[in-house]
Amino acid sequence: MFKQLGLIGCGLMGGSFALALKKAGLVEHVVGYSRSPASSAAAQRLGAIDKVADSALQTLAGSDIVVLAVPVSATESSLQEISPLVRKGLLLMDVGSTKSDVIAAARRALGDKLPSFVPAHPIAGKAAGGIEYAEADLYQGCKVILTPLPQTDPELLVKAHEVWSALGAQVVEMTPAHHDAAFAAVSHLPHLLAFAYFQAIAGQASGAEFLSLAGPGFRDFTRIAASEPTVWRDILLANKDEVLSQAGRFRLALAELEALLVSGDAPGIEERIRQISSARSQWQLADSRPPR
Amino acid sequence: MFKQLGLIGCGLMGGSFALALKKAGLVEHVVGYSRSPASSAAAQRLGAIDKVADSALQTLAGSDIVVLAVPVSATESSLQEISPLVRKGLLLMDVGSTKSDVIAAARRALGDKLPSFVPAHPIAGKAAGGIEYAEADLYQGCKVILTPLPQTDPELLVKAHEVWSALGAQVVEMTPAHHDAAFAAVSHLPHLLAFAYFQAIAGQASGAEFLSLAGPGFRDFTRIAASEPTVWRDILLANKDEVLSQAGRFRLALAELEALLVSGDAPGIEERIRQISSARSQWQLADSRPPR
Repeated sequence: MFKQLGLIGCGLMGGSFALALKKAGLVEHVVGYSRSPASSAAAQRLGAIDKVADSALQTLAGSDIVVLAVPVSATESSLQEISPLVRKGLLLMDVGSTKSDVIAAARRALGDKLPSFVPAHPIAGKAAGGIEYAEADLYQGCKVILTPLPQTDPELLVKAHEVWSALGAQVVEMTPAHHDAAFAAVSHLPHLLAFAYFQAIAGQASGAEFLSLAGPGFRDFTRIAASEPTVWRDILLANKDEVLSQAGRFRLALAELEALLVSGDAPGIEERIRQISSARSQWQLADSRPPR
Repeated sequence: MFKQLGLIGCGLMGGSFALALKKAGLVEHVVGYSRSPASSAAAQRLGAIDKVADSALQTLAGSDIVVLAVPVSATESSLQEISPLVRKGLLLMDVGSTKSDVIAAARRALGDKLPSFVPAHPIAGKAAGGIEYAEADLYQGCKVILTPLPQTDPELLVKAHEVWSALGAQVVEMTPAHHDAAFAAVSHLPHLLAFAYFQAIAGQASGAEFLSLAGPGFRDFTRIAASEPTVWRDILLANKDEVLSQAGRFRLALAELEALLVSGDAPGIEERIRQISSARSQWQLADSRPPR
């Protein structure tokens, strides 16, 4: 399908993409670059990339697919650097968790090369990041959201569908704004709440003692509060309007529950919890991955 | 150690206590009562109890230890019913998740029999309740909080320490008020927040679609939103002052994070998340259970 993949950012997401593309027999050669030489060296050792490039721009020489897998805050500078070598027919994708800000950066950095860019967000990851956790099956069974623009080259959009599908992912298309609203709701807001909750508990006088008494419910509820600071700084800021809007909905729902508690309305509380508990029990993680 | 256990409430907690006491060889005979005849029959079939009693009161005849393992809202009526047969030297314990309300109920129901009562809260449980999930090892390695009163018989308090320790639990003593503050912080508030969050997301126009895009972080964060409605109605109402007070602390922490987002203060957000993420990464579930 492709002659050469240019990989910019050799971490968990990028490394796994390269391994998956190779495993599927969809690429002949992979050239990779990482800001950290240790990461690109490790990526080569692990067989994710065949050759280390000296710069992000260099990865484009001879490549017909380029994947940008860098922190969201490095997107614009990376796109600016590679823009001179982006040409018609080259499939350029990112893997970022926010889309409106990435697209704004792409508009500024790519100019009339914008049609090559197919914004992508694979819903995959692990608790720990880094090339050492990369694996060829990371995208098997996950969803990948594509948020094409009116300018996006229709042939490249089809190619993007094909490549992610070939890696075992389920491809969903939506507008960038809808994507950002959805992920503010189901991913970014829970992180903000988990951060706030952990801080509220740990920061009080008896905090350390309280934490020593916490059980499995607390463990699961706060797991995402251990997330990577720079990644979440970038995501929360990039999508702050939607996050704040969802936080407003949450505050209303919390205030309603608090009012039921204050009034001591036992049947009202039970009914409310019954609806929530029943809906949450029916919810299931979307995962088309075959059992393994 | 004991001649006969009287078990009132043959569910997960009570059934597991009976199985554990038998496995440890600490009791000769177990008499059990449940409001649901199906539960007591199942408890007998599973070997948790030897004989089914016709009433809560009947479980006290010949018993030197009685454990009340009923929903918190049924505590006072159960104590009232058994009060006539509570005698000096009988060890009477509950397993409730809140303590101040249980103790107020015990004061009213037991009168001068109050010294027999040692309020207990074992920090154990499973996602699903019911006698069919009971197991002899449920309390192995868990913490058990005892919240004795000035009136509590010191010999019975020692016995309570001994029996929970013999079942493999780590016993901690604290005042009822401190217990309720601690569990409002690390258990009851997270449930309230998970309920409010799930409702806020599911209740919006695109809720169903958003939920279909949610991933593993969402799954763990909302797991406790599927909790049992009557149990959590009772706990939240019984401990509402402490829960509302902890909710106030949480709202302040959330407002601070939102303000950092609004102002676009990237270094401030990163620093805040870094402290939280580092503290949460160092936290570990207290569990003295040997690996198995």
